[in-house]
Amino acid sequence: MNAPEKPPFASLLAQACAPFPASRKVHVPGTLHPGVAVPMREIALSNGERVTVYDTSGPYTAPGFTADVRTGLPALRAPWLDARGDTEPYAGRAPQAVDDGDRRDTPDAERLQALRQQAAGLQRTPRRARAGQCVTQMHYARRGIVTPEMEFVALREMGRHEWMQAYGGDAEREARLRGDARGARIPELITPEWVRDEVAAGRAVIPANINHPELEPMAIGRNFRVKANANIGNSAVSSGIDEEVEKLVWSTRWGADTVMDLSTGRHIHTTRDWILRNSPVPIGTVPIYQALEKVGGVAEDLSWPIFRDTLIEQAEQGVDYFTIHAGLRLPFIPLTARRRTGIVSRGGSILAKWCITHHRENFLYTHFAEICEILRAYDVSFSLGDGLRPGSLSDANDEAQFAELRTLGELTQMAWQHDVQTMIEGPGHVPMHLIQANMDEQLKHCHGAPFYTLGPLTIDIAPGYDHIASAVGAAMIGWMGTAMLCYVTPKEHLGLPDREDVKQGLIAYKIAAHAADVAKGHPGARAHDDAMSQARFEFRWEDQFNLGLDPDTARSFHDETLPKDAAKQAHFCSMCGPKFCSMKISQDVRQFSAEQEAAAEEGMAAKSAEFKAAGGALYIPIRPEA
Amino acid sequence: MNAPEKPPFASLLAQACAPFPASRKVHVPGTLHPGVAVPMREIALSNGERVTVYDTSGPYTAPGFTADVRTGLPALRAPWLDARGDTEPYAGRAPQAVDDGDRRDTPDAERLQALRQQAAGLQRTPRRARAGQCVTQMHYARRGIVTPEMEFVALREMGRHEWMQAYGGDAEREARLRGDARGARIPELITPEWVRDEVAAGRAVIPANINHPELEPMAIGRNFRVKANANIGNSAVSSGIDEEVEKLVWSTRWGADTVMDLSTGRHIHTTRDWILRNSPVPIGTVPIYQALEKVGGVAEDLSWPIFRDTLIEQAEQGVDYFTIHAGLRLPFIPLTARRRTGIVSRGGSILAKWCITHHRENFLYTHFAEICEILRAYDVSFSLGDGLRPGSLSDANDEAQFAELRTLGELTQMAWQHDVQTMIEGPGHVPMHLIQANMDEQLKHCHGAPFYTLGPLTIDIAPGYDHIASAVGAAMIGWMGTAMLCYVTPKEHLGLPDREDVKQGLIAYKIAAHAADVAKGHPGARAHDDAMSQARFEFRWEDQFNLGLDPDTARSFHDETLPKDAAKQAHFCSMCGPKFCSMKISQDVRQFSAEQEAAAEEGMAAKSAEFKAAGGALYIPIRPEA
Repeated sequence: MNAPEKPPFASLLAQACAPFPASRKVHVPGTLHPGVAVPMREIALSNGERVTVYDTSGPYTAPGFTADVRTGLPALRAPWLDARGDTEPYAGRAPQAVDDGDRRDTPDAERLQALRQQAAGLQRTPRRARAGQCVTQMHYARRGIVTPEMEFVALREMGRHEWMQAYGGDAEREARLRGDARGARIPELITPEWVRDEVAAGRAVIPANINHPELEPMAIGRNFRVKANANIGNSAVSSGIDEEVEKLVWSTRWGADTVMDLSTGRHIHTTRDWILRNSPVPIGTVPIYQALEKVGGVAEDLSWPIFRDTLIEQAEQGVDYFTIHAGLRLPFIPLTARRRTGIVSRGGSILAKWCITHHRENFLYTHFAEICEILRAYDVSFSLGDGLRPGSLSDANDEAQFAELRTLGELTQMAWQHDVQTMIEGPGHVPMHLIQANMDEQLKHCHGAPFYTLGPLTIDIAPGYDHIASAVGAAMIGWMGTAMLCYVTPKEHLGLPDREDVKQGLIAYKIAAHAADVAKGHPGARAHDDAMSQARFEFRWEDQFNLGLDPDTARSFHDETLPKDAAKQAHFCSMCGPKFCSMKISQDVRQFSAEQEAAAEEGMAAKSAEFKAAGGALYIPIRPEA
Repeated sequence: MNAPEKPPFASLLAQACAPFPASRKVHVPGTLHPGVAVPMREIALSNGERVTVYDTSGPYTAPGFTADVRTGLPALRAPWLDARGDTEPYAGRAPQAVDDGDRRDTPDAERLQALRQQAAGLQRTPRRARAGQCVTQMHYARRGIVTPEMEFVALREMGRHEWMQAYGGDAEREARLRGDARGARIPELITPEWVRDEVAAGRAVIPANINHPELEPMAIGRNFRVKANANIGNSAVSSGIDEEVEKLVWSTRWGADTVMDLSTGRHIHTTRDWILRNSPVPIGTVPIYQALEKVGGVAEDLSWPIFRDTLIEQAEQGVDYFTIHAGLRLPFIPLTARRRTGIVSRGGSILAKWCITHHRENFLYTHFAEICEILRAYDVSFSLGDGLRPGSLSDANDEAQFAELRTLGELTQMAWQHDVQTMIEGPGHVPMHLIQANMDEQLKHCHGAPFYTLGPLTIDIAPGYDHIASAVGAAMIGWMGTAMLCYVTPKEHLGLPDREDVKQGLIAYKIAAHAADVAKGHPGARAHDDAMSQARFEFRWEDQFNLGLDPDTARSFHDETLPKDAAKQAHFCSMCGPKFCSMKISQDVRQFSAEQEAAAEEGMAAKSAEFKAAGGALYIPIRPEA
């Protein structure tokens, strides 16, 4: 089958921005800070009820909003930043040809020029902390300050206790439904003060660079809803800028809580401008990728000055978190020599190459304090990278992996001394029986800093389906305490994800994250499932589609078998057909039980006779039988 | 997008029968019994190695085999049955019009006649146990007899201990890789005698009706590889016989260990003839579906004589296991009245309707001993149905569900008194934190009989993706001790699965089952993953595709980004591009570490200088950079 010709960018973007069916954007206003209005998606059901769900899609799905990717999103946070008065605009680092990979004469200089021209409307004057100031959310939190970002997050997490109260009369049931938080401490009512305390303790990160004012704040932490990250990014082999912006918007539509721009090809700086200015979610990067571009791809030519320059470049653009592989120490490298698949982290392998060539300690480790100084001036969060994560089941949980993890724990404490927000990256490829140990070791050595894992993949033989093989591990480790799950797409190990892969990967990871929230008993998470189950029981088909993670697909699957509109009101579905519908029968059972209870004293034999006499039909035929 | 026109049956069947790439069918001969030759798939790797994998696809993928669905498969087991001499052919039950749903004049009498004509070549004379004989595998096992079926199963499970020995020199690594069997007792060497003992103890079932001689025997048990079942079957609304046979062959191609025929429409008897005669895997049914057809869909008109007649009809055709909802007792029905989604099992709701109408105990429960007598005469296995399984997270693990489960445990003991093989069905919809309790209760009350669960689904909000939402639960409960996982397709809750859905459902469930085998440490399971990982590390792309669960999809995903043949030998892939390839770098690390070790006394400084001088390239360019 030939792939259909690709639709133009505008049409793809329109698809990504289309409102969800029966949904409208609502804003929950804050009470502490002006301008705090948290967007959520409200789904209207056919029975008049409404279900409100977490919404990562930003202004794109708001009514009347027209996306213009050349001017970017409104700067929601700008007034908050101004009000704090601890930052200053400044000229910023001068742009250099090398930022976009122009190390040598390039055959596409013209194209690059055009792209930059188009991105002209996206330029912002960078800000940084005033001399002597620290502008991180952690810094404020430790001083007892509740920022607008914290209030925003508190409302966004929707710690609604009404739902639990609905089961209040049935203690046994409530206990079953409450979940098993496995050591997480999730309050039923999520307050701005509680968010502040979590950030102050380092148990939660609010990635929010002061140069990314377009951001709708969110939090990553064990006691918060489990989040999902989507990776996008062009590479040397394929992909362009338009495509990456569209993938970004598309990702947030399908629930990406953060997006990592892993671009590695040319135009890396300009691509990032486009992505950041158009992103309502935090953007993460791996700065070593760009640093390596700057030295022409020769790892041993990397140096601290080049890396430092890249950090500042990206911090000024507004990147919200950096993956920094500072835990990959020289003495750990030989521990990987007998592995089946060696070092599979790109960043990790670049640094390993540098270390063994120079036989020197990793410069990210030796310069870690200086990195902290840079990050605190912009409130960039650390995502301490696991450069030695296992690349196969065979290498899971080995000494190389855990030695690095313990080092990340040490670095976390150093970052916190600088008030820099920090999370810890985790694997990778881990069979189910070794997953818990990953969480245990992280909790033991990393002082409560949020864990952010890639999957993990539970088997290695499913290329083309690694989103599923890894969603299993992701759901489990999410329940165990991981705060954010980095998605894996069906193309993992095979090629670059296209937009369909991005969607498939995200939906698999929203499933994993939601399964974890439900199992942990995050208040409010289960209300969504209960609304769906109720719609199923009552044959409200449209509500079932609209409540689903992907309404379009649910509707189209239903219509393949029973396309008629009448079937959407039918009291049966295509699985069983009209005669066998079990949902219908159990409604009869319920009616019977209720009658039975009411008429207990009339005697069961009499009741049975009455029911028989009434001859209650098994189903309501909506059309003559074929 | 319009659905493309459906290709003709012959072409679809040819697709289902095509050999897998780089694979050949091999047969491992038995030593105890003539005619035992266990088919496996051997995958030839480009480095000369071979990997042998479990093969459910039957003769269809054998070289030179031409499928003729009108004559059926060869009767592999016939000589074994003859040799036992404890069965006899007999006239069998006379066919009745009602068997195919011809209760009234049907508009498609002509079509039915044509189908029967075509199925004429599929008629076999039924066998049953001679008077006073019991012909179940459990009966033989308890008498110490190792049947050909048991020998077949032992070879098929591939308890190879060579693989573990490969790690023998590294105790720490071996311990990590060995898995955590969570109470299962899996020997490293699987012998026919061990299989016999498992069957004798009731811990394993070999579903093998004496009237299904085409069957390639397999076992279901906690100490065996975790199996996957695929449901097929037409319904009143859609689907035809051809389609069902093709779905059967297609299912076995993608790894279905057993297939349940859940047909509910017309032609139900004739469909079953086609399926059984063409099936190399055990076939299960839910006889109450056909019994209900015979009484025109009116549940209260069901009776023991009609049900009994249906059991004999299906046992004579060769059905290998029956789902029997005998544990759904009258007193449990009111326990479901306050559920969110009541009774969702089709069989369960039919019987509940019968019970409440007549206000009498379930006739399957009161006639259970007579059912046992029938099943033992044909070696049909019980799959004791969970008619009260939860239909939503909200109803998971409630008293209705567990009351029925305890009853299934009592019935298991009664079945075993008749030497009837028995397994227990389980849920359904269960959040992660309540899954372990399902396994615990089953182990506690069901005396070691194999558990056979549907999923479970871990969330309710993923219509269109329930294969993923349930693969999470399936992998977990498989690791905990469930013996067989009933698949869920993407169409669950929405419509009838087509062939693509069947494939997607099966692959999700092969992932879950394999993840469970790996976590439990089933000997040999991990060898497959290790071969894949090694191929990844060595950039053997063709081997990666061929070792995957779905080679076609893996290859096509790779080719989307890098279609050139040269890229299949490339020492990089499209994810990172040539400059960043981490696999390549870690090969350098390995080489470096090896050199370092060898030359330890020469001093590290000297070595570092030497490596720098050599200037080892980071990658091998295969074409000029773009």
